[in-house]
Parts: sequence; C-alpha cells; structure tokens
Amino acid sequence: MRLSQFLMPTLRENPSEAQIVSHRLMLRAGMIRQSSAGIYTWLPLGFRVLKRIEQIVREEQDAAGCQEMLMPTIQPAELWRESGRYDDYGKEMLRIRDRHDREMLYGPTNEELITDIFRNAVRSYKELPKLLYHIQWKFRDEVRPRFGVMRGREFLMKDSYSFDIDAAAARRSYNKMFVAYLRTFARMGLKAIPMAAETGPIGGDLSHEFIILAETGESQVYCHRDLVEFDVLATEVDYEADLQPIVDKWTSLYAATDEKHDPAIFAQIPESDRVEARGIEVGHIFYFGTKYSAPMKATVTDAEGKDVVVHMGSYGIGVSRLVGAIIEASHDDAGIIWPDSVAPFDVALVNLRSGDAACDAAAGDLYTKLRNAGLEVLYDDRAESPGVKFATMDLIGLPWQLIVGPRGLKSGVVELKRRSTGAKEELTIDAALARLAAKG
Amino acid sequence: MRLSQFLMPTLRENPSEAQIVSHRLMLRAGMIRQSSAGIYTWLPLGFRVLKRIEQIVREEQDAAGCQEMLMPTIQPAELWRESGRYDDYGKEMLRIRDRHDREMLYGPTNEELITDIFRNAVRSYKELPKLLYHIQWKFRDEVRPRFGVMRGREFLMKDSYSFDIDAAAARRSYNKMFVAYLRTFARMGLKAIPMAAETGPIGGDLSHEFIILAETGESQVYCHRDLVEFDVLATEVDYEADLQPIVDKWTSLYAATDEKHDPAIFAQIPESDRVEARGIEVGHIFYFGTKYSAPMKATVTDAEGKDVVVHMGSYGIGVSRLVGAIIEASHDDAGIIWPDSVAPFDVALVNLRSGDAACDAAAGDLYTKLRNAGLEVLYDDRAESPGVKFATMDLIGLPWQLIVGPRGLKSGVVELKRRSTGAKEELTIDAALARLAAKG
Repeated sequence: MRLSQFLMPTLRENPSEAQIVSHRLMLRAGMIRQSSAGIYTWLPLGFRVLKRIEQIVREEQDAAGCQEMLMPTIQPAELWRESGRYDDYGKEMLRIRDRHDREMLYGPTNEELITDIFRNAVRSYKELPKLLYHIQWKFRDEVRPRFGVMRGREFLMKDSYSFDIDAAAARRSYNKMFVAYLRTFARMGLKAIPMAAETGPIGGDLSHEFIILAETGESQVYCHRDLVEFDVLATEVDYEADLQPIVDKWTSLYAATDEKHDPAIFAQIPESDRVEARGIEVGHIFYFGTKYSAPMKATVTDAEGKDVVVHMGSYGIGVSRLVGAIIEASHDDAGIIWPDSVAPFDVALVNLRSGDAACDAAAGDLYTKLRNAGLEVLYDDRAESPGVKFATMDLIGLPWQLIVGPRGLKSGVVELKRRSTGAKEELTIDAALARLAAKG
Repeated sequence: MRLSQFLMPTLRENPSEAQIVSHRLMLRAGMIRQSSAGIYTWLPLGFRVLKRIEQIVREEQDAAGCQEMLMPTIQPAELWRESGRYDDYGKEMLRIRDRHDREMLYGPTNEELITDIFRNAVRSYKELPKLLYHIQWKFRDEVRPRFGVMRGREFLMKDSYSFDIDAAAARRSYNKMFVAYLRTFARMGLKAIPMAAETGPIGGDLSHEFIILAETGESQVYCHRDLVEFDVLATEVDYEADLQPIVDKWTSLYAATDEKHDPAIFAQIPESDRVEARGIEVGHIFYFGTKYSAPMKATVTDAEGKDVVVHMGSYGIGVSRLVGAIIEASHDDAGIIWPDSVAPFDVALVNLRSGDAACDAAAGDLYTKLRNAGLEVLYDDRAESPGVKFATMDLIGLPWQLIVGPRGLKSGVVELKRRSTGAKEELTIDAALARLAAKG
C-alpha cells in the first residue's frame, strides 16, 4: 500500500479525551475514530490489526475442534426471560423495541441463544461433545465508556460454548479451551496468565481469567514468577489427549486477581518468586454446569433413552479489546511496537526523498520485490521530510523499517531498522531483501 | 470435518414457513436457523458459504483499489439529521435509545457515517480519489420479513463509498466498481447483468442494479440476449486504465428492470435476442454527486487552496442475500448445487458402510489424503443407510461426491459423482485422488 493513497489520518498532538496510552496511540496512528461514546470506526490501519488478531483466534479455536458459526447481534427478549437474566442484566443491556413493539436486545453475550439452537438441533448423546463458537459484535451499554477499545460499548468478542453429557466431559472441553487460550495469546506475543476468577453474571463453579501483565493494567494481580516464564508454544498440542497435566501445571502455582487474592497464601511463596503487577483481562472461561440448560430444557437422550440435561461452559476472548491490550503491553515513547504476528503491515518502506529519480526507482523496485516475497508493505512515498516519516513509522510501529535515501544509494546500501530494539543496520539492497523475504 | 461431529441439523420435511426454494433448502440443509422474524443464526455449513462469498467480494474490492475498514453497527441519530434522512427513513430504520436516552439507530446503510469520517480525515485534493468499503451487518426493520436470508431484517452487506474532486473523477470510481461487480459475481458462478435502475432512498443521478436471472426471481427483467453471453473473466482488468469501454459494452445494449422498462424500445430488438426473465438483485451502485457531502460539508482544498465539495458514490453487495440468490439460481429437486467457488466443502466423502473395517480404512485414508491435497472435505462417517447418505449429500450440494463402498473396494475402485451433472464414474482410488487433487 502506498501511504500517499492510504487513509491513515495521524495526529501530532495527544487527543485530550484519551486517558490511557493505547487509546492515545490508536487515535494518533489513525487506527480508529470515535463515532459516538464508546463506539468506534476501525480505519484501514486498525482494521488490519483487528483482522489478524481475529484470524489467530479462529485458527486456534479450529485447531481445538471448535466449530465456527455466526449468531445475530439482535436477540429476542423471550430467550433471556427463560434463563431469568432479562431482568437481572440491568442497564448495561441495550434494549430495543422493533416496529411491532416486540422486545429485542443487542446481545452482550450468547448463552441463551446458543442454548436455544442446541436444544433444537441436537438430540442424542452420540452427537456430544459439541464445541461451537462465533466472532461477533456485542454491545454493553457502559454508563461511562472510556479507555478506547479497551472498554467500548460496541465490541468484537469471540465466544465459544461447550455442551457435554456430564461434568467430567465438560471438564475436558474446559481444558481444551484453557490450552487453546494459552496458545492464542502466546501467538500474539503476549504472556497471558490464567488466574482463578470470580464468575460474575455468567455464573458457574469454575472460572479462569487470562491476564496479561502491563504497567498500565486495570487491576492488581499476584502470581508465581514461574508462570511468567513458561514457554507455551514449545510443544504441539494433541487436543484429543488428556490435557489435565497441562492445566495442572498452570493452575498449581499461585495466580490471582485482586478479588481472589489471599495475602497469607501469597506470603508463603519465596519473595524472589512473588510477582505483583498490573494486569489486563483478555480472556475469561467458565464452566457453569446446567445453569442455562436446566431452565431452558436443553437435553439429549443418553444410551438408555433417558433425557439428560447437558453440562455447559462458555469461553470469551475480547478481540477488539486485544488491539488495545497489545499496545498497552508493547509500546515506547515514540509509539506502538507491534508483535510480528499482529502487525498491520510487515514492513515500512521509507523513501527519504520522494521525487528524487534514484530514490523513487530503488524504492519502487523494493516495493514490488517485497510484495512478491509475500510481505505486506506500507510504502511511504509522501512528499514529507525524513523527520516526519521517521516519526510516523515509529508511531505506527511496524516491525521493520527499510529506509532508502540518496546518500546510501550512492554506495548501494539501504538501512534496516528493527522497531522493537531500535537496532539499525546498513545492508546492500539484495541483502536487505533476502533478510526480509525470510520473514515473509 | 467428520459429519458425525459436525453441527448440521438437516430436515427431511419442507418447513411450512418457507415460501421460496432457497429458504426451504437452507433450512433443510441445516445452514441457518431463525432466531426471530427475519433474523438468522448461520450454522457451520451456512457460515462457510457466507465466508467464501465474503472473501470473493473482498478480493475483488481490494483489486479495484478499495480500502477495507469497519464502521460500527450502531450510529448516532445526529448524523442522519445533518443529511435530512433521519425523518425520511420511516419505520424500516431500527431506532434505539441508550441508557442516557440518546437517540441511536442500527445502521441500514452508511452514507452519513462515512461522510463524517471523510470530512474529519481528509483535507486536500491530493488525497483523492478515495475508495473505502466495509463488510458489516445492517438492519432494516421490514414490516413482514420473509424469503429467508433473501430479505432478512439483520443482513450482511458490503458497502463501498467513493470520494472524488469532481463528476468526471467520480465517474471513474463508479466505473471501477461497475467492473469489480461484474468480476465478483462471475467468480461466484453467476451471470449478473447490470441494468439501469431507480435510485430510491439513496438518491442520485446514475445507478445500476446487478441482476441475476433465476426462475424464482423477485422481479421481471428485460434485456438483450448478448448480455447473458458475455464472458467477464476472459481478460484481466487494469483498474488504472480507462474502464469506460468496458462499461459502454455492458450499457449500450438494452437491460432494464420492470420499473425502468420501455416496451417500445425493447420491441426494436430482434425477437430472438429479447430475453424476458425473472431476476434477483444482488448489487446496486449509485453516483449521487454532492447529495451528502454538501449538507454535511465534506470538502477538500483544491490546487488553488479553495474549498471544494467532494462528489460521492456508494456501492452495495448483499453478501448474506447472495447465499440465497445463488441457491435460487442453482438447485434441482434433490437440493442445492453449489458453484465450486462458494461451496462450503469441496468434496463429500461418503463411506457407504461405516463400521466395516475395509470401508473405514479406505475412507479414513482418503480423508487424510484429500485434506493434505488442500481440499475441504466433509466425511460422512455416520451409521446411516446409503440412501440417507446420498440424499443428504445431494441436499447440501457439494460439488463432488466420492463414494466408498464394500463392493467397489473389492475391485479397488470408488465412485466419483459430479453434483451439477449427476455424472458418475468408477475410478481406482489413486485416479480419484489425482482427479480431485487437481481441483485443490
């Protein structure tokens, strides 16, 4: 993409309405614009990050045997009356009346709707387990929305639901999602630590929040240092095998949010292994047994032909929230530092003197060759000063900057900068191409 | 995917609420379920088709130089007051009040919101042209929703918007979308014919509907036979070149919907070249000049530093509607016949005797090898009779059926059936694999 044509309205000044760094940087980098309180348009740069995160989430759900589908945003009130949550949910639920005065709502979550689908579609224990998910916009009418996409009103969530014959089988589904979540966040360059959590309005007996550590996190968290060091992606996972040992490894060490923290137990950990930090919740998983299936009569027939109420769990990842959370965990004073796997483009190609014949030719040629190597390239071909271009590229945080200038070209070299470390290297054009192509 | 594990609740009987064939077949094939009037859940089989259609639309938009972004579903009423459409739009607009009693709405289209984004982000004529699009759920509160996804209340639409310095430049953007639409529908196996159209509530001076011919179409259409024969995909398109000759080729011959039909002109066409048929609208493009940009003050500075109101167009494709429209155009008495490019799976692998050791081994091996060849395979491993399996596979309409049975295996052969023609062929396992792998 040529930056001269790309809709990326960057801002030089910090917008006064943004209180946290991810919100400031997303506005300044031209990733999002607010359309009303807590509701955002994703401009092309932000949209690209959102899609890459969504795709990682999808691949890991699929790998765990979860089937993708799509439920609508607008739900009928009747289903929420069946579960008893319609009146409980309060003002955070956006309630709507259609032209025939029917009571509808913009779904904040989907336990009721998926349970309705399940009870009409599945009859026999032989069809279990079922793990289903969708990635859909939700609405939560926050009284004071703030912190940008970290706590928006309209937000993109991946929510999965499991249906099993009994509690033991439901635990196996829970474990699949537990492990899939570890892998999902690790692939985004995040250290997400599962912590025992309150179940809140979803309800249930067993629940973990996945928390990433960031100085600017919303809540205080406490855990054993080893949890920060575990390497999630070191081994492949067989989701048909017993996953309990992996779950045990992660849950046997101390990890708790403020709500669940027990200072007495934490004090028993050797001081050098105690981590007290700020954390951001990026995922939350629940096992809640028959909380929805019993009142909504979601049953299957068992081997004896008897009706059995299924056991359920639900599993959420805040897809749009993750864009902000990753920035909270990965930025510096100059701007965003995208992990390679979620960056909106792989390479920033910076032409230091657009309009200069030699620079235009060399940069144009690199633009073609990098794309041919399978890389996503943002080519800064604007008529701006080098200072403006460097500042823009540091702000938007692409993993690599390839800088083409008149001085270097005279000796046949370009500069390659790694955004995360700031390390710069002069290379021949061919060597730079080869280096980057190896990442494509 | 093993069918025994896949959530695909097929129905034997025709559901009484479904009046048209696509609605009946989508319900019977387990592609969708209604959650309230005109609002559907996309079950895994339907979701796969929706995603494939969406991806073709996306690729052709990107190829035409259109940039993807994402606007929210919920919009503020103020913007629609600026354009004057808030009161005009009537009861089809789903109006919402949030917890602070602010007037919001579920967007039925996005001219106002994109114009607001444009006027805040773009300053200079040098940044034009801009072609932006998103693929997002819309809501239209139909008084009597029916015909399944063909006319749902919550529906998925791709809508693009163009911004240009003057009418001549806007015409170039219009032409890009005109050609992109021809290619988009052709890639889905559809003959979509652009027809002069009324502009309706969007407004404007120039408009074409893209109509596919189908016996069950919603409206009567009239056109010259040559339009049905043109081969859209025969040549690559250079979107930077002048596209007017391509547009002229398509618009110089007679083509009109009922609303625009002129029997006197139509009668001048030789009788053998006259086509009168039923048609389904799958896309609609508009040039409307400054209808939104003038009241909303969307301007750029021109080369002399003077403010100029931009010229706009908008361009819609009904993504969820296309799923139904393709079925209307491509089915038989036994079920759906998916074009290869949008099929939910490429191959149905049918094990005629699940539980038989030889059949299970051969089918299991084929399942692995077909997937390794890059094909999406639905493996019918259920304990059902051959008759049930054949009926299921004809109903869901995958392009190829590969049938593994005990009799054939004794002589080392399997049967390959092409769904669209019904042609069957006995082949050795290796020959069948090679034939299908060539499609992968």
